[in-house]
Amino acid sequence: MNIHVGIMGATGYAGLELTRILSGHPSVTIAKLGSTSYAGKKVMELYPQLSSLHDRVYEETDSEKWAASCDVIFTCLPHEASVEAVAAFEPYGKPVIDFSGAYRYDDPDVYARSYQPPHAHPDLLRRAVYGLTELYRDQVKTADIIANPGCFTTCSILALTPVIASGIVDPDTIIIDAKTGVSGAGRKPSQALHFPETHDNCKAYKVAAHRHTSEIEQELSKTAGKPLGISFTPHLLPVNRGILETIHCTLPKAVSHADVMAAYRKYYGDEPFIKLYPEGSLPELKHVVGSNELHIGFVVDARLNRLLIFSALDNMIKGAAGQAVQNMNVRFGLPETTGLLSPAWYL
Amino acid sequence: MNIHVGIMGATGYAGLELTRILSGHPSVTIAKLGSTSYAGKKVMELYPQLSSLHDRVYEETDSEKWAASCDVIFTCLPHEASVEAVAAFEPYGKPVIDFSGAYRYDDPDVYARSYQPPHAHPDLLRRAVYGLTELYRDQVKTADIIANPGCFTTCSILALTPVIASGIVDPDTIIIDAKTGVSGAGRKPSQALHFPETHDNCKAYKVAAHRHTSEIEQELSKTAGKPLGISFTPHLLPVNRGILETIHCTLPKAVSHADVMAAYRKYYGDEPFIKLYPEGSLPELKHVVGSNELHIGFVVDARLNRLLIFSALDNMIKGAAGQAVQNMNVRFGLPETTGLLSPAWYL
Amino acid sequence: MNIHVGIMGATGYAGLELTRILSGHPSVTIAKLGSTSYAGKKVMELYPQLSSLHDRVYEETDSEKWAASCDVIFTCLPHEASVEAVAAFEPYGKPVIDFSGAYRYDDPDVYARSYQPPHAHPDLLRRAVYGLTELYRDQVKTADIIANPGCFTTCSILALTPVIASGIVDPDTIIIDAKTGVSGAGRKPSQALHFPETHDNCKAYKVAAHRHTSEIEQELSKTAGKPLGISFTPHLLPVNRGILETIHCTLPKAVSHADVMAAYRKYYGDEPFIKLYPEGSLPELKHVVGSNELHIGFVVDARLNRLLIFSALDNMIKGAAGQAVQNMNVRFGLPETTGLLSPAWYL
Amino acid sequence: MNIHVGIMGATGYAGLELTRILSGHPSVTIAKLGSTSYAGKKVMELYPQLSSLHDRVYEETDSEKWAASCDVIFTCLPHEASVEAVAAFEPYGKPVIDFSGAYRYDDPDVYARSYQPPHAHPDLLRRAVYGLTELYRDQVKTADIIANPGCFTTCSILALTPVIASGIVDPDTIIIDAKTGVSGAGRKPSQALHFPETHDNCKAYKVAAHRHTSEIEQELSKTAGKPLGISFTPHLLPVNRGILETIHCTLPKAVSHADVMAAYRKYYGDEPFIKLYPEGSLPELKHVVGSNELHIGFVVDARLNRLLIFSALDNMIKGAAGQAVQNMNVRFGLPETTGLLSPAWYL
Repeated sequence: MNIHVGIMGATGYAGLELTRILSGHPSVTIAKLGSTSYAGKKVMELYPQLSSLHDRVYEETDSEKWAASCDVIFTCLPHEASVEAVAAFEPYGKPVIDFSGAYRYDDPDVYARSYQPPHAHPDLLRRAVYGLTELYRDQVKTADIIANPGCFTTCSILALTPVIASGIVDPDTIIIDAKTGVSGAGRKPSQALHFPETHDNCKAYKVAAHRHTSEIEQELSKTAGKPLGISFTPHLLPVNRGILETIHCTLPKAVSHADVMAAYRKYYGDEPFIKLYPEGSLPELKHVVGSNELHIGFVVDARLNRLLIFSALDNMIKGAAGQAVQNMNVRFGLPETTGLLSPAWYL
Repeated sequence: MNIHVGIMGATGYAGLELTRILSGHPSVTIAKLGSTSYAGKKVMELYPQLSSLHDRVYEETDSEKWAASCDVIFTCLPHEASVEAVAAFEPYGKPVIDFSGAYRYDDPDVYARSYQPPHAHPDLLRRAVYGLTELYRDQVKTADIIANPGCFTTCSILALTPVIASGIVDPDTIIIDAKTGVSGAGRKPSQALHFPETHDNCKAYKVAAHRHTSEIEQELSKTAGKPLGISFTPHLLPVNRGILETIHCTLPKAVSHADVMAAYRKYYGDEPFIKLYPEGSLPELKHVVGSNELHIGFVVDARLNRLLIFSALDNMIKGAAGQAVQNMNVRFGLPETTGLLSPAWYL
Repeated sequence: MNIHVGIMGATGYAGLELTRILSGHPSVTIAKLGSTSYAGKKVMELYPQLSSLHDRVYEETDSEKWAASCDVIFTCLPHEASVEAVAAFEPYGKPVIDFSGAYRYDDPDVYARSYQPPHAHPDLLRRAVYGLTELYRDQVKTADIIANPGCFTTCSILALTPVIASGIVDPDTIIIDAKTGVSGAGRKPSQALHFPETHDNCKAYKVAAHRHTSEIEQELSKTAGKPLGISFTPHLLPVNRGILETIHCTLPKAVSHADVMAAYRKYYGDEPFIKLYPEGSLPELKHVVGSNELHIGFVVDARLNRLLIFSALDNMIKGAAGQAVQNMNVRFGLPETTGLLSPAWYL
Repeated sequence: MNIHVGIMGATGYAGLELTRILSGHPSVTIAKLGSTSYAGKKVMELYPQLSSLHDRVYEETDSEKWAASCDVIFTCLPHEASVEAVAAFEPYGKPVIDFSGAYRYDDPDVYARSYQPPHAHPDLLRRAVYGLTELYRDQVKTADIIANPGCFTTCSILALTPVIASGIVDPDTIIIDAKTGVSGAGRKPSQALHFPETHDNCKAYKVAAHRHTSEIEQELSKTAGKPLGISFTPHLLPVNRGILETIHCTLPKAVSHADVMAAYRKYYGDEPFIKLYPEGSLPELKHVVGSNELHIGFVVDARLNRLLIFSALDNMIKGAAGQAVQNMNVRFGLPETTGLLSPAWYL
């Protein structure tokens, strides 16, 4: 199989990472590299590391032409732009995999509480499939619009679903203390992300106000069978990549490490990209950065009746571009791991 | 006044930091620099940055001689060594300020649950004063043994005392998610702290098992008037200095930002080293690293009835050497801020 | 003595560092904090670490009012702004210490080859004293305009003057390979200094084209007694502070380490801020960052008839704000080291 | 083709990186993972990121058994161990690719001047092929012992060979100012590489005394047709991976950028792993880290008659494990780029 792909927003960090991964995918031809800001420029001028694409040129997106030459479109854009870009491709019947929050919500009203302006295409929003592959694999197989989930969201939902579904944790007590690398904030410079301000620093941001909270609550409420309020607090680390989440939950009744492991195994026993840690070891950023894997470890604190869950992923890969490729593989009937088996870099 | 000081363990990181601070203290003469491993070596051979002390020589500690030439001894040693070092100075009647956990506990049994072997000098342990200056200032003034508190402990206890004392938070729901720089682990190399393993990494460690937990619980239980169990989880950041704690608490009843601020102002309104943040801004590592200050900010999450407290300090200064100097100043009747007013480095 | 100082450009990194240093200077009152972009804002809103100044307000500069309330003005501005700011203070007879390249050149034509537009006040330029304290101390004592030298320049000129003056190195073979932290590029965000682009990176920049080259050549040519062409190549390190220069020179005749040391001692034997390294040890960034010191070490490579000189300083202190305070001390007859004796931070 | 490989020293950083690369090589089966220190341990216990190998066990090397089950042996060992390990495999006729300095020298006497003790198998040393693939491709095709070159060496020799061979630079004036990440120093902890000592630091080391100098001189002297003395000075950067070399040379006569480019194109026009930069752009660490590429850019400084060459590579890939795989591909008749086309990580 040879899938022709088009990448809108190819010069942003998520688009760059998608380009990097797809350049090594054995069943993909990169047909179009889109950029508004850098249309006309060669890849070499921006990203010398993409050697095999040096002479390729970034171009403006023309939906009709792109639809004619692409089998799938990836939209790596801010949510406002994605709302329209996805709609623009709709008439051509080519699947679109969107990286933004634009198509992740079941309910346009919930969308409107987290994003501005209100959704211009609520009909399309309802047709979109939430692209958390491990949980929505069957729907992804036939979806036209795949809403690739957020990085924090992926790390949170996959870590919590088994222990909520099994009743192991009290779902009204969940506190997610998240630590993330800087690349998730994108390529655009700002005072806060100027090197001297971020280097050797650590801080919380958007406390009690981060958009991903509503996305996490949407999905975990379905699992719990009731509306949940999740406390989600992100912190910025002085590293480029990776998310480590420490999730604090109350245990309604005593459990052993083996009990919790059984709940996870039931869900993820055969998942190629989810690794469960044995008692006594825990995930670290370095174990996942560079890979499409999500690592989960946990500690049962019997003294305080608490479960501490530690989940880690690469925000640019399993939290963005890698998961998008995973969805593409599923959508096109390829083995799900195709092009995605690189181990973490470690060093 | 001219205080002659002796520093045991002067070549470890805490001892080095103490040397750095005391070298600029206007009322201090550094009489003795102690080191077992480097006895006989010049300062220049180990620490070229200590220019004013280049020709000084590290020496073995002789309690009698040191007591004769020093007005105060700082013991920057592992706890086992501190237990004996403090006892060795006891006959000479010179105050000792100890950096380890050796003399921080009211109850030898509690000590023995966190540290090995059991305490050899429980009588001295009972005479020691817990050197959290803001809370034990009066006792420090006359103490012979000052047990300088731990870095996590200082950051936790000072942030939580006002909101526990005022009944603002439910003290049975406290979760401390701490992030620390590497210097707290000391100067000794190890696989885990080898540069390539720690750089670009973040991980939790000693989960549900960190020694500082019992020290935090000892102090906060006094404030609460009942035994508390605190969930304390430390994480390692790829930076040298600084601790940022995110403290998650449940609110038994609704409060405003102003209510919480009033509780803090009551305790710390006049404290020179504690800074309270106005609504809308929060502490960051960069705001405190290099200073002897503790910064506290908070967010009332009315949606989830939670209070999120953010406290930050430099683990080597307010969390160790700076606090020790603050205690020395109090003990010797100097203005408490003497030699301790350097602002954070920021860059 | 109580010197009232005004700081123009106080919110930039050099101005911030100057504020930090002066806030601890025993003979200084900070009378004015100037900022065009942040006029009207409180210090707390920008820099929470400057605790003692939290309620002070940044203000626009009015030359007449500032001259009336200040004994000395520091202009921490881009060169275009400095050219005019220095001139604006000239009528009031208060000394000005300028941080930019505006007043560093003997010859307006040389200035015009490195900076645009041509100098608007060549008469003032001729009256300015080059503020490299160790070499121009006597002139600084009475100067009205002190042109504080560049960071690379300080590191280069002080390292090379003794070995050129003594004839130890062939002055036509000098290659300076410089490595610098990011803070020297200032506070303004840019794509190149966005955290993810600079972290884990190293690159050369402005190769054969850096402005400081002409400043280095001006000063070293005077020492050599003939025009020199110096090869100067700066590299960006993923750290905030510090410059380390590796200077490669050819030896016209064989010399020993002791010979070279004698040349350095002759110049710097009594200098409080210059440290010479004994054979077998060399400066590192960590030895100087946080201090006003310049460290110099060297290796005689007898096999290749080369001298390798290693010089290091903190670009924000000895390379900018610290040197400016050193000049102020000299100009006002204070002990030269006043307020400048903090050792490097090391950790 | 399915090549069975054995990796001695698989738990060191070079062995780990080789394992990472080979785990994704389409024509390789990892038959043996060797380790003396960790024999009997599972991969998961040391390196959780190597998911596909989690249950594999590190084992002691038995030359006979390994030779029976492997088609090629990689020896990622200290030079003393490599000298013997290579010899131990010699009777079995399986090619060995060695990562150390043990078999890189033409002359045992030169080896003995850089390494201790003197070489125990000078006969084998003479049979070894220097595995700098771009320059020794034909010899590698049939070699039994491939001496994989050093990281600095690869970066230096490939950057200099074309301009020496063409007579563009004066080969007696070459100065290599090298900057390297920490991983090259290996996995073993030490005081100097303890995180707090290396973070935010930069320093030169082994000045005028680095072993790679003799290896660089051996190869470049052949190109020059006369013995060369090269000034080589390494510096340690606070990053994990990557080498950036700034090479300073004198031009005997004026040349243009195009002239120099022509010399490089002649050598490397078709090389898949060497990228030449157009005028106005230069390599950076970030362009190569994660890839098997060597990037070369340069500036002609007409004012000073100098050529500045900038070369960059990933010390663990093109400087070690990637180059070893490149040699294996050549030796086994596979396309040279098999398994080696991942672009640099950039973020």
